[in-house]
Amino acid sequence: MEKKNVTFDDIAKYTHFSKTTISRYFNNPDSLTIKNQQIIAEALEALNYKENKVARILANGKTEFVGIIIPNLYLHYYSEMLNQILSTYETYGYKFLVFTGNGKKDIERKYIQELLAYKIEGMIVLSHTISSQELASYNLPIVTIEREDEYVCSVNTDNYMGGVQATSLLAKSGCDVLIHINSEVPENTPTYGRIKGFQDICREKQIPHELFLGNTGDTYEESLQCISQLLEIIEKKYPNQKKGIFMSNDTFANMLLNLLLQKYGRLPDDYQIMGFDGSPASREAVIPISTVGQQIDVIAKEAMELLVMQMSERKKRRPVPLGAPVHKTITPILIRRQTTI
Amino acid sequence: MEKKNVTFDDIAKYTHFSKTTISRYFNNPDSLTIKNQQIIAEALEALNYKENKVARILANGKTEFVGIIIPNLYLHYYSEMLNQILSTYETYGYKFLVFTGNGKKDIERKYIQELLAYKIEGMIVLSHTISSQELASYNLPIVTIEREDEYVCSVNTDNYMGGVQATSLLAKSGCDVLIHINSEVPENTPTYGRIKGFQDICREKQIPHELFLGNTGDTYEESLQCISQLLEIIEKKYPNQKKGIFMSNDTFANMLLNLLLQKYGRLPDDYQIMGFDGSPASREAVIPISTVGQQIDVIAKEAMELLVMQMSERKKRRPVPLGAPVHKTITPILIRRQTTI
Repeated sequence: MEKKNVTFDDIAKYTHFSKTTISRYFNNPDSLTIKNQQIIAEALEALNYKENKVARILANGKTEFVGIIIPNLYLHYYSEMLNQILSTYETYGYKFLVFTGNGKKDIERKYIQELLAYKIEGMIVLSHTISSQELASYNLPIVTIEREDEYVCSVNTDNYMGGVQATSLLAKSGCDVLIHINSEVPENTPTYGRIKGFQDICREKQIPHELFLGNTGDTYEESLQCISQLLEIIEKKYPNQKKGIFMSNDTFANMLLNLLLQKYGRLPDDYQIMGFDGSPASREAVIPISTVGQQIDVIAKEAMELLVMQMSERKKRRPVPLGAPVHKTITPILIRRQTTI
Repeated sequence: MEKKNVTFDDIAKYTHFSKTTISRYFNNPDSLTIKNQQIIAEALEALNYKENKVARILANGKTEFVGIIIPNLYLHYYSEMLNQILSTYETYGYKFLVFTGNGKKDIERKYIQELLAYKIEGMIVLSHTISSQELASYNLPIVTIEREDEYVCSVNTDNYMGGVQATSLLAKSGCDVLIHINSEVPENTPTYGRIKGFQDICREKQIPHELFLGNTGDTYEESLQCISQLLEIIEKKYPNQKKGIFMSNDTFANMLLNLLLQKYGRLPDDYQIMGFDGSPASREAVIPISTVGQQIDVIAKEAMELLVMQMSERKKRRPVPLGAPVHKTITPILIRRQTTI
């Protein structure tokens, strides 16, 4: 059974300090001498004092909780981003309430409403379910990563630059046709930059090209089937032509590579493959895949900095609301490996 | 700026019910007629009432928070387990505070102490950092997964059965020598069952065998280097012998497969490879890897059920403490693919 809670009164009696001094120890320890801090710290140990943070939350409104809304964990990009965000605990002390939507919009909305009721201090949103306008209406510090972000702060990879880098490399390799496979990305999302970068370079260099945009599935099996079908179409449509294929992410690039290896026993000379993300899937592939590396650690760090900046402002006596949303852009890094020249 | 909070007083005035009736609506809605429930629900909407869960926590001690302590997210096994646990939100409504230790013991212990201060209701622990004796001393509902579990409830794969299944399959393939690569697992952890199963079958069938137990690294790069070095040793020690290699997990099995494919362009006939986990890495490999499938969805579901059972008991007027810790064992499923006969 649980013991009776130790109160400030108990600590004051034990140390012969006033309750005000004990309170100062918790709220502003440096206002006490080191010696007195030590005496109180030892008393807390002797009394087996357990801090009740819930009571503190009610007192000062600081929950130190941040919500993370992530679409899934099966794409390496998301699990690595989550890992990097969680590891900021060491720096800032914020605890993370994590939710994976897995495409269930109603449940995601319900979850966010619950988080708001729990007085979380801020939220990092990677899922695409809820518009930035609705997110902004929550009146909560928010940072989004790689999604529509008109009304909220965000940190994104420079996707256009990434699309340009990937397409330029494929163009240099003397491909007859360049192909980009992606889901149907709305024009107001950062990812659309990859498509635009692809098109701009193809047009600029006057290289025949084709876009395959459509539903690429929500699970590994669905995605593999989509890519398998697309490969059949591509093989029929462009036989004997050198094909440069720019996949929307490394997981999909790895699927394409494996399908080709299973069919031909090697990567045929008339294929060049580029991924996107720089996730483990690209380097762990049997033929390491060329990719556009997103600096996931930098994105996670910048996102958390941007969030902490907003959350800290709220704790000031006279917080100054952010004028316009801040959008940070992180440069991607072209990683040349063995699936391109 | 935030609006003034709507109080029970406001709701009572608006609906012309007593404050007691409003309180009953929140704590025991079925004690009101459906019609009166509707009137109050509509009033809440009209008044734009936002539930303050923090205040409710203080009132009834139910935070609906569960902590998850996980070693890392780079092994598919862990990210998939996390995904499955998080998805139980839909069933139970518990919200998860997630922490990845990444080998930093001090920070992990500090984090758990914080969670306790936040009055979380329970904890699912996958990391190996803290002994089950210490975990039990927190006096909190806990379920561990695949780690030392003497003093706490747990759900584990039947690792011994898995080791037997994997080794028996390799034995049938007519290997000259069987090899098991694993980290130095303490005998009181569930994983040790794999090693014991391997040894028992090798001895029973009198097949030459070798165990390589040691530090297998904390990151992809470290692990790849370890396995690359072990492969060199194995190639030198057992040339011209048919080798059946049972890897401790699919990620490592995939590394071994890729190293062999890079060296020989195909999986040589004198190698048979078994993984463990049944994670995406095994089916996504260019040559799909035979493995012992852990039923991650079942484990996550059982772990959450076992935790909810303990947490619900605590909420009863006269909770009956659990006698001895409950240990559930989930049978693994042998998955034969293309890296074994």
